[in-house]
Amino acid sequence: MSLKTIHEIDIVKAPHSKIASVDFDNLIFGNTFTDHMLVCDFKDGAWGKPLIKPYEPFLIDPSAKVFHYGQAIFEGMKAYKDESDDVWLFRPDQNLERFNKSAVRMAMPEVPEDIFLGGLNEILKLEKDWVKKGMGNSLYIRPFMIAFGTGVVAAPSTQYRFMIILSPAKAYYSGEVKVIIAEHYSRAANGGIGAAKAAGNYSAQFYPQKLANEQGFQQIIWTDDATHTKLEEAGTMNVFFRIGDKLMTAPVSERILDGVTRKSIIALAKSMGIAVEERSVLVEELIQGMKDGTLKEIFGAGTAAVVSVIRAFCYQDTTYELPVQDDSFALKLKEKLTNIQYKLEDDPFGWTVKIG
Amino acid sequence: MSLKTIHEIDIVKAPHSKIASVDFDNLIFGNTFTDHMLVCDFKDGAWGKPLIKPYEPFLIDPSAKVFHYGQAIFEGMKAYKDESDDVWLFRPDQNLERFNKSAVRMAMPEVPEDIFLGGLNEILKLEKDWVKKGMGNSLYIRPFMIAFGTGVVAAPSTQYRFMIILSPAKAYYSGEVKVIIAEHYSRAANGGIGAAKAAGNYSAQFYPQKLANEQGFQQIIWTDDATHTKLEEAGTMNVFFRIGDKLMTAPVSERILDGVTRKSIIALAKSMGIAVEERSVLVEELIQGMKDGTLKEIFGAGTAAVVSVIRAFCYQDTTYELPVQDDSFALKLKEKLTNIQYKLEDDPFGWTVKIG
Repeated sequence: MSLKTIHEIDIVKAPHSKIASVDFDNLIFGNTFTDHMLVCDFKDGAWGKPLIKPYEPFLIDPSAKVFHYGQAIFEGMKAYKDESDDVWLFRPDQNLERFNKSAVRMAMPEVPEDIFLGGLNEILKLEKDWVKKGMGNSLYIRPFMIAFGTGVVAAPSTQYRFMIILSPAKAYYSGEVKVIIAEHYSRAANGGIGAAKAAGNYSAQFYPQKLANEQGFQQIIWTDDATHTKLEEAGTMNVFFRIGDKLMTAPVSERILDGVTRKSIIALAKSMGIAVEERSVLVEELIQGMKDGTLKEIFGAGTAAVVSVIRAFCYQDTTYELPVQDDSFALKLKEKLTNIQYKLEDDPFGWTVKIG
Repeated sequence: MSLKTIHEIDIVKAPHSKIASVDFDNLIFGNTFTDHMLVCDFKDGAWGKPLIKPYEPFLIDPSAKVFHYGQAIFEGMKAYKDESDDVWLFRPDQNLERFNKSAVRMAMPEVPEDIFLGGLNEILKLEKDWVKKGMGNSLYIRPFMIAFGTGVVAAPSTQYRFMIILSPAKAYYSGEVKVIIAEHYSRAANGGIGAAKAAGNYSAQFYPQKLANEQGFQQIIWTDDATHTKLEEAGTMNVFFRIGDKLMTAPVSERILDGVTRKSIIALAKSMGIAVEERSVLVEELIQGMKDGTLKEIFGAGTAAVVSVIRAFCYQDTTYELPVQDDSFALKLKEKLTNIQYKLEDDPFGWTVKIG
């Protein structure tokens, strides 16, 4: 694919760049932003002209619906720089598609392709110096939309703001991850908004996450809310299980996010001859797999960390340590995927898209 | 109870009031705001000094966590003016308590009583002319808290903003309400945030609500997400069923909001000799009740509408019209409750609290 060109956009450049003051070797994930942001407002039933302008706080009414009713969605993406200084995106069409699915579920307007992808192309051309070369370096991209209309009555807004902000990132290393399987708290309801990248899905996890941290676990593996027997997601990532030489992950549903990393890993695994099953994996399968030695790996998959290897899981107060794999599917898939993203290997799937 | 006095507060008065330009006979609910707002910021682990200042938009960073992760909670309350021009609140301690329960569930700091109730007392003294006399008139109060800290990483904020904004309101008339019983969509998960007055709970309802509207229904009666057999809430209200001469409503749980109107209606009904059961009511009980004529009333209960009488419900494509009651529990309870709120009757429960 190639990025749709945007026909109408205003650009107001920052008078000077703050890039020289940024310590690119010591970035905290998601805390530093580039010189510019993209802003596009929706009102009277239509999207206005996008504007790229200096990154700065903006004015908003205290009764804006985003504050009161949580009408807000986002995406997470990354831009990578290859050895020839070209900047690349990874499957941005998938992010656009999911963003607009989230928009529909949250009763928000869809964002047209030329504003979302065309606008992203323009801001990335302007900010290309913020994308650093080298494995692990990337520019994290956060497109988001908030309900900008006013009024404290629980009904969809008629005004929205779409924005893109950019944050330079180092490799996201999550350390030795121990997880706890959720036995009480849940991430999503049947018929709820779990499949949408809606803001409210994330803050809902903070308290259970805090309790897990206090018990010494970095993440929670979420289970279905009705029975707590089906394994669904790991923290804010999709989760994969390797039992024997088969890779398994929950099927996408209205409770489970259709992750871009998830679907790329499934495609890559299949292309590498690994059997993949998209089906509900039960907690008891993990316990059984620990007993008979068939449970070999568990890993999370998401844009920020790409692949996050899980070393141990806790269930009903028992902690199970996973064996270290010489032939790790997780690491093999991560290497293959990042090589494609950084243009170090062929991209037979046509997933990468050049900025320009 | 009486309101805790606030010891430290700054007040910057609006140079002129906009009250003369407001048409109090034609207010749209939640759309007009008074001259002032209360703002109080939390950072470095502590709440700062509250400030009452002119109502106006404020500056916020594009990466503020409220936009990305939906860390936001609120309350809905009302102030009433009696015939002697005194202004009254109704059970404000209950709102404070629930607000702080919501805060804990959303991993946000609790707001101290003197800031929440003491601050409310101060701003209501200043805005007392905005509370109009007469049954149905009120000043709707919206205390809320948002995550103000920056950074696009899914973790609780370390900075928060607590605000109170005020909106004059007429009686909230919802018309002849027909509802549809949810068979697919859901409001809350077991182990989720349904009991918190969290922003994300509301936008999650907008899309199913829109579908219901398109089918000719004003509201949805939410059911449990696992089986869709238990009746839980009506739109953003708690819901009561009268079968025979018994009143029933779902027990509060982690899926169901602990409504102030709900608990007041239960107390009032009991004091009036009406039998009340707090238990899960099943959809099949309604169908059976329609068949044998024992289902007499369904009504929603919440701060905005107080009591909202439901005239018909739809389940599995069949619409059931409820009989009109000469001896309506809903109307009797509404009258009793509003008489207490407007100081037209004794308040044996000590629910009303005077501003001053």
